[in-house]
Amino acid sequence: MKGTAWILSIGNELLIGRVTNTNAAWLAKRLTYLGYAVRRIVAIPDEEVEIAEAFREAMAKADVVISTGGLGPTPDDVTNLAFARALGVEAVVNQVALESVREKYEAAGQPLTAERVKMAMMPPGATPLPNPVGTAPGVLYRLGDKLAVLLPGVPREMEAVFQQVESLLASRGPPVYFAEREMEVRGVPEADAAPAIREVMKMNPRLYVKSHPKGSEVGAPVLQIHIYASAFKREEAEELVEAAAAELLKILQRPR
Amino acid sequence: MKGTAWILSIGNELLIGRVTNTNAAWLAKRLTYLGYAVRRIVAIPDEEVEIAEAFREAMAKADVVISTGGLGPTPDDVTNLAFARALGVEAVVNQVALESVREKYEAAGQPLTAERVKMAMMPPGATPLPNPVGTAPGVLYRLGDKLAVLLPGVPREMEAVFQQVESLLASRGPPVYFAEREMEVRGVPEADAAPAIREVMKMNPRLYVKSHPKGSEVGAPVLQIHIYASAFKREEAEELVEAAAAELLKILQRPR
Repeated sequence: MKGTAWILSIGNELLIGRVTNTNAAWLAKRLTYLGYAVRRIVAIPDEEVEIAEAFREAMAKADVVISTGGLGPTPDDVTNLAFARALGVEAVVNQVALESVREKYEAAGQPLTAERVKMAMMPPGATPLPNPVGTAPGVLYRLGDKLAVLLPGVPREMEAVFQQVESLLASRGPPVYFAEREMEVRGVPEADAAPAIREVMKMNPRLYVKSHPKGSEVGAPVLQIHIYASAFKREEAEELVEAAAAELLKILQRPR
Repeated sequence: MKGTAWILSIGNELLIGRVTNTNAAWLAKRLTYLGYAVRRIVAIPDEEVEIAEAFREAMAKADVVISTGGLGPTPDDVTNLAFARALGVEAVVNQVALESVREKYEAAGQPLTAERVKMAMMPPGATPLPNPVGTAPGVLYRLGDKLAVLLPGVPREMEAVFQQVESLLASRGPPVYFAEREMEVRGVPEADAAPAIREVMKMNPRLYVKSHPKGSEVGAPVLQIHIYASAFKREEAEELVEAAAAELLKILQRPR
């Protein structure tokens, strides 16, 4: 095991039930696949003291802490300040982050207000993570052997910024081996393949299966199916992919 | 405010990202509507010591603690035992709960194994909550002024058991007033009304809007729309319902 992970999901919208926490499920799946044991997912209100307390507990108990939300320009976006508070330091303006925030607003013809400067604040020594699809940069911080990663809350921004730390997360601890296989399935519409893919993914949390429709001939759909697996031994990852491929074909050949 | 609430979501399936935590979003919405401030949603693995620790922290910090999951017959279903451990007592077999479990298995022609008897175990003094759609009873426990409610993890069982404590939760603390209004909308298909309803519900977390299609004449759909609101003053609840109704009509009359 590469270590333990906690996910902190920051936002009142989660605690009033307006939003279902799909970010946490996505991250939990990715972290499991990378070899981490996710031990807690905690949703926390947009309050600096509460968030700081949650970060302190998480940093004490987990090897890797990933947060989502609270990095934007509104007054209730306080995750970066709360994280600094948890570390017992003052957040400072990171010049690299400031430059990227400035550029984005300038391109939109908008001024750099104090609220927008706040998006570039982080604990001294933190590394900003570029946000290719939004304005708020993410934050990467190392505390001894531990890692904290602060991600934006908008799902596609969260995913895009997370991808930048995936190889770092993969490189921590014992090596994890990845295997993959691509196959083409003919005559099965994507809607019919979806439940089969879900069933196969249940075999093992280290399995990931994706399908891409290819060619649009009505009545003769072609699906490209990509199977990925991770394991702490190379053979295990390969066996997992083979077993998943066999199971998938078995399910798809069942009479429907 | 009626008090604070924590939601404990128990299950490894959440922590490996196999399942998105829709139960917590549903409960958070219901609790907010009833007048509670949900302060944490915590997902926890299926481990007795971890669950007990989470219950202890939640019972110390919140007025109401609601858990989901871990009440079934499999060996990793340990929520009831962990809850007793958190209270520092031994779980005992509750005779009322045992009777309901026995009846359900008997009706299915199945024996009452030790794993199934476990489903009737709870701290002494706890009240079993009948599960009309499954086998695992829920658990209600009072600790001084505080309440703990243990619910099954299967969504429809969770919802059905929760409904049995709703009036108890509504009766705690200061009174909450509820208002409602029904209206009929003609000529708008349910699929078109859905985004409008979502938009209106965003006005206030104390609002709840449901639609029921009525009459199936193609081209002339009739929708019955039910608007509910809660507030700490009667007039506020009523104003909220009226404002929601006005907003809904405004959105539905926009050219599409």
